[in-house]
Amino acid sequence: MMVIKVGGSEGIDMDSFLDDLSSYKDYILVHGGSSETNKLSELLGKPPRFLKSASGYVSRYTDKETMEIFTMTCAGKINKSIVSGLQKRGVNAIGLSGVDGCLLKGTRKSALTIMEGSKKKIIRDDYTGKVEEVNTELLTTIMKGYVPVIAPIAISEESDAINVDGDRAAALIAARMEADALIILTNVPGLLKNPNDESTLIKKIDKNNIDEYMEYAQGRMKKKVLGAIEALEEGVKKVIFSDARVAKPLTNALNGNGTVIS
Amino acid sequence: MMVIKVGGSEGIDMDSFLDDLSSYKDYILVHGGSSETNKLSELLGKPPRFLKSASGYVSRYTDKETMEIFTMTCAGKINKSIVSGLQKRGVNAIGLSGVDGCLLKGTRKSALTIMEGSKKKIIRDDYTGKVEEVNTELLTTIMKGYVPVIAPIAISEESDAINVDGDRAAALIAARMEADALIILTNVPGLLKNPNDESTLIKKIDKNNIDEYMEYAQGRMKKKVLGAIEALEEGVKKVIFSDARVAKPLTNALNGNGTVIS
Repeated sequence: MMVIKVGGSEGIDMDSFLDDLSSYKDYILVHGGSSETNKLSELLGKPPRFLKSASGYVSRYTDKETMEIFTMTCAGKINKSIVSGLQKRGVNAIGLSGVDGCLLKGTRKSALTIMEGSKKKIIRDDYTGKVEEVNTELLTTIMKGYVPVIAPIAISEESDAINVDGDRAAALIAARMEADALIILTNVPGLLKNPNDESTLIKKIDKNNIDEYMEYAQGRMKKKVLGAIEALEEGVKKVIFSDARVAKPLTNALNGNGTVIS
Repeated sequence: MMVIKVGGSEGIDMDSFLDDLSSYKDYILVHGGSSETNKLSELLGKPPRFLKSASGYVSRYTDKETMEIFTMTCAGKINKSIVSGLQKRGVNAIGLSGVDGCLLKGTRKSALTIMEGSKKKIIRDDYTGKVEEVNTELLTTIMKGYVPVIAPIAISEESDAINVDGDRAAALIAARMEADALIILTNVPGLLKNPNDESTLIKKIDKNNIDEYMEYAQGRMKKKVLGAIEALEEGVKKVIFSDARVAKPLTNALNGNGTVIS
């Protein structure tokens, strides 16, 4: 069984990805929603803002209203568009968010220390968090007849919907479902030594040495590598970062193109 | 087992409804989304338009873009807000649209004859339809551990998401799931002889005579009565139209307040 995460950035052709995906069996799909959320936020006159934590991670500033916009795009538009896209290809998919059946339980960071320039600041109205638990029983039940398609939203201890990182959500799902592989498809060819030069792709990483590669992970790649570390630590055998923009992106990744960590 | 449909009109206090609902067991909840969809459509500069069919039924003009807006509000914002609202009250709910697992299969009206004033016109880009089949196996599986919360979206024969009437969707779900009762909660006290006078409430209807009452159903009430007829014909024992705006609206309805058809 494998867990596949596909990003929603510009340049990724979802139809082409779904064509490829629909020839596989026994997987869970996790999707993103950043770029669509940005678009809707702009249209609604609430341009997206991003926060940089004191430890250098970037996340969307998600106040109550932004969380609603995120839910509309992720659990609504994108999730159902992927589900009907899979249905068109004969795959009986079910779209869920982490709120549904407490599929993904998380903790909300009720006080977030961020950097504004060189100054620290505390943000208290942010609905961002981290997935801590996966309802594996629900996923196992659904997988008896359906393909789960999961939006990166979790439910907090106070039962609020929270925005979680899709890569790390996929990593925890892979770990708890004891997946053989976690495939993270994005708009870069894999982990690059120089983020501005795609020819510096790191092709293979021994999972025992992955910590040494953290230094190459910049921006959004940080959470992908962090997710990979978590998944591998919990027993997932292989993690692949690969390019979602190529023809047959999943087949390409499974053929070993990208960064293979095992 | 009962199927409950709650509308999303102004004046309905969803928190108060969920407080009441959470003391019951063994039900399926179907919700609406018209008023929220209108709001988002306005905000996005695409004001809602409604069509009147040649036979007098009113429905939302749902082109591709409107269908996306409808999906965002119904399957995204409203569905997940009800699910997390139920989770807050200790009810393990799962939100689904009819697209998920082909829960609700429908036929899209690819050519819709409408009235513009006294003239007939044919509309071809409308994603509205009628639910024809319910995936009862999926609902039965989910109900073993969870409460299903369903958005009124179906999947067409071409696997497109289509906008369907929530009342008639609830009626067909009640019929196919062999529910004991169908409860339709809305922003009126029930079926009124005079739609402008709430004191003209029709309290009881013998199900064998319901056709005679069709004449009193105006506007959106037409589809509710049509749904009731369909549900009763397929064996649902009781249909109640009742007021969602009162305290404990479900308890109030089950106590026989509203229009009880049995």
